[in-house]
Amino acid sequence: MFDLVFTADTFAMFGPDDPAVWSRTTRMSRHEPFTLLAALAAVTSRIGLVATASTSFYQPFHIARFFASLDQISGGRSGWNLVTSSGLSEAANFGLTLPPEHERYRRAGEFAEVVKGLWDSWDEDAVVADKEAGIYIAPDRVHTLNHHGEYYEARGPLTMPRSPQGRPVIVQAGQSDAGRSLAAGTADIVFSVERDLANAQAFRADIRARAEAAGRSGDAVKVLPGAMVVTAPTRAEAEDKFDRLQRLIPDDLGLIMLSRSIGIDLSQYSPDDPLPKFNISENVGHRKVIADYAAREGASIRQTWRELVGSRSHRVVIGTPAEVVDDLAQWFESGACDGFNIMPATFPEGLDDFVELCVPELQRRGLFRTAYEAETLRGNLGLEIPERGER
Amino acid sequence: MFDLVFTADTFAMFGPDDPAVWSRTTRMSRHEPFTLLAALAAVTSRIGLVATASTSFYQPFHIARFFASLDQISGGRSGWNLVTSSGLSEAANFGLTLPPEHERYRRAGEFAEVVKGLWDSWDEDAVVADKEAGIYIAPDRVHTLNHHGEYYEARGPLTMPRSPQGRPVIVQAGQSDAGRSLAAGTADIVFSVERDLANAQAFRADIRARAEAAGRSGDAVKVLPGAMVVTAPTRAEAEDKFDRLQRLIPDDLGLIMLSRSIGIDLSQYSPDDPLPKFNISENVGHRKVIADYAAREGASIRQTWRELVGSRSHRVVIGTPAEVVDDLAQWFESGACDGFNIMPATFPEGLDDFVELCVPELQRRGLFRTAYEAETLRGNLGLEIPERGER
Repeated sequence: MFDLVFTADTFAMFGPDDPAVWSRTTRMSRHEPFTLLAALAAVTSRIGLVATASTSFYQPFHIARFFASLDQISGGRSGWNLVTSSGLSEAANFGLTLPPEHERYRRAGEFAEVVKGLWDSWDEDAVVADKEAGIYIAPDRVHTLNHHGEYYEARGPLTMPRSPQGRPVIVQAGQSDAGRSLAAGTADIVFSVERDLANAQAFRADIRARAEAAGRSGDAVKVLPGAMVVTAPTRAEAEDKFDRLQRLIPDDLGLIMLSRSIGIDLSQYSPDDPLPKFNISENVGHRKVIADYAAREGASIRQTWRELVGSRSHRVVIGTPAEVVDDLAQWFESGACDGFNIMPATFPEGLDDFVELCVPELQRRGLFRTAYEAETLRGNLGLEIPERGER
Repeated sequence: MFDLVFTADTFAMFGPDDPAVWSRTTRMSRHEPFTLLAALAAVTSRIGLVATASTSFYQPFHIARFFASLDQISGGRSGWNLVTSSGLSEAANFGLTLPPEHERYRRAGEFAEVVKGLWDSWDEDAVVADKEAGIYIAPDRVHTLNHHGEYYEARGPLTMPRSPQGRPVIVQAGQSDAGRSLAAGTADIVFSVERDLANAQAFRADIRARAEAAGRSGDAVKVLPGAMVVTAPTRAEAEDKFDRLQRLIPDDLGLIMLSRSIGIDLSQYSPDDPLPKFNISENVGHRKVIADYAAREGASIRQTWRELVGSRSHRVVIGTPAEVVDDLAQWFESGACDGFNIMPATFPEGLDDFVELCVPELQRRGLFRTAYEAETLRGNLGLEIPERGER
């Protein structure tokens, strides 16, 4: 009874130039998210379906339409993880040059406004389907948008009725200043990368304050840090499970993946050298975690990738179900988050472990639902249905 | 046991300026095709899933990926109806100006080459998934495309393995000279608009000749004209059913839809005036049928829309199951087509009638399968799996 399943996305193979990278990882091959989630919509009834879709390689009309259609097919369970892209290998698949970060966010802000406008273009009661009168849609209840902006144009209306949940849910994950502002102004959910309780509390407080400054309720934005949970009936078993997984990360792949995460080719160093300084103004969430970890531990390059590559810099929670739940509950109850993006280390085993061992413990403590509250994703997240035209 | 289900598409509401049009027709509201077909893929096992996707509003990488993903999800049942767009209301949703027809086809030709190149970027045996060696993909079996063309760039490779059917099936419907050439060079299926046996025979012969001139087998392109079948146990019932449907077309809507089909505002004429001359160089298939009909019958405007609007200019076959099958069989056996795009006048009744009344009769005569021959769409169509790199 999770709120949602989330699928990340990228428009290029990981490391297309480097067979040493891509031949070793299943991340090379992934389904296109809209087709994947629509197929899942047909065989599920309550779980939310959230996909990454980049503002860099689509127009707002595409995105508005994909999520609206997924929303109709799923009965109100779709969500859009709004990202901007900076990858050169992605851009090369479209013959595009990507703008610098500050402009990407500016574009993304306008993009999101247009998408919301298109989602609002049909009134809730637009479809009258009056057979006697021969009227399918009430003519005054469908509206053009006529957006002529700095980066985008879209006339509208959208080609389908309003979402069963008002609008699909919007997710964001930017942790830079520009990313936080965009999220606070437009997102329903923020995915974050946090390994430290105090930092997580500060981040959530900042997002809530920015949301309020933008005229929204702090409760309108749910902050969900990632957590890679490794659990087993005893602590020793859980640690052993984690250690076995860590040993499966080949050294050369760990080095390359850490290099890509921080934007520096680490093959010029010895793995036992301390991690060199790197620029954290791009990919802020992940890079800040890596820099903090290496500084705090005085960590070598090898130690850093061992610690962070498996979970993609996210927090790792290892222990018995009671220990894991103690830890998650502490974060939740101390204002560090509104929930978690649970990232099993392996599928299906890691997910099964969480469901079979941790969920019952969470339910015993009243921290996890025992039945869905609503039919839509927005309903299960406890979010209001936005009014038409609401920002 | 149809070969495929086909969903058309458009990126704008029909007649967005004119509530008198769009409030009266369900064509205003349609699911986005990729999400719709992916959902259907999850609940079907053999039927082919074909969607229209315009080369005007996507990049080749998008299209290659959508159909590749739908193909993986469906086990090799996807097909792409390649169209170019000329609609101003569609372009306005993307802030685009569309090129003239001859350039649209030139672009579409390059677009299709890039898509096929991306579909070919993974060898069939690229995924080795060797757990012991830690190798997921054989490094020498995935290829970049490095396309730098007149209109498009795409580096590749695609982000997923080769299709279970080699490549998704390509469908086209262009009937202009440029459209025919593109179809003969790249399509597996051609949808056509034909009401006359001799014209249909000539069209199919022309497509086959062009395919052979392009170095392909004539049998590599299947020509499927549309047929709106209205059937009932007796001829009188079938005619009555058709007449009832015809009477449900409101005069004002018939006038507007015919106006839009031929690109002339007919409200300036009386419905009893003869249909005026119009330009048939755009939307050739439909307009040629309309012009031929009006000329042959000396038809008034009203008579023309009564005859052609319901079936969208396609052939209408009315009669008992035996009469319908006689007619379809004559076309099929005299080289006018390789099959039909059956377009029921209503859903689900019209489709049920065809399935319950005509399919058994077709099967009795050995003209319709009693079991699927293959698991993939290409297999059921009797098409070869293309070699990598084949044009």
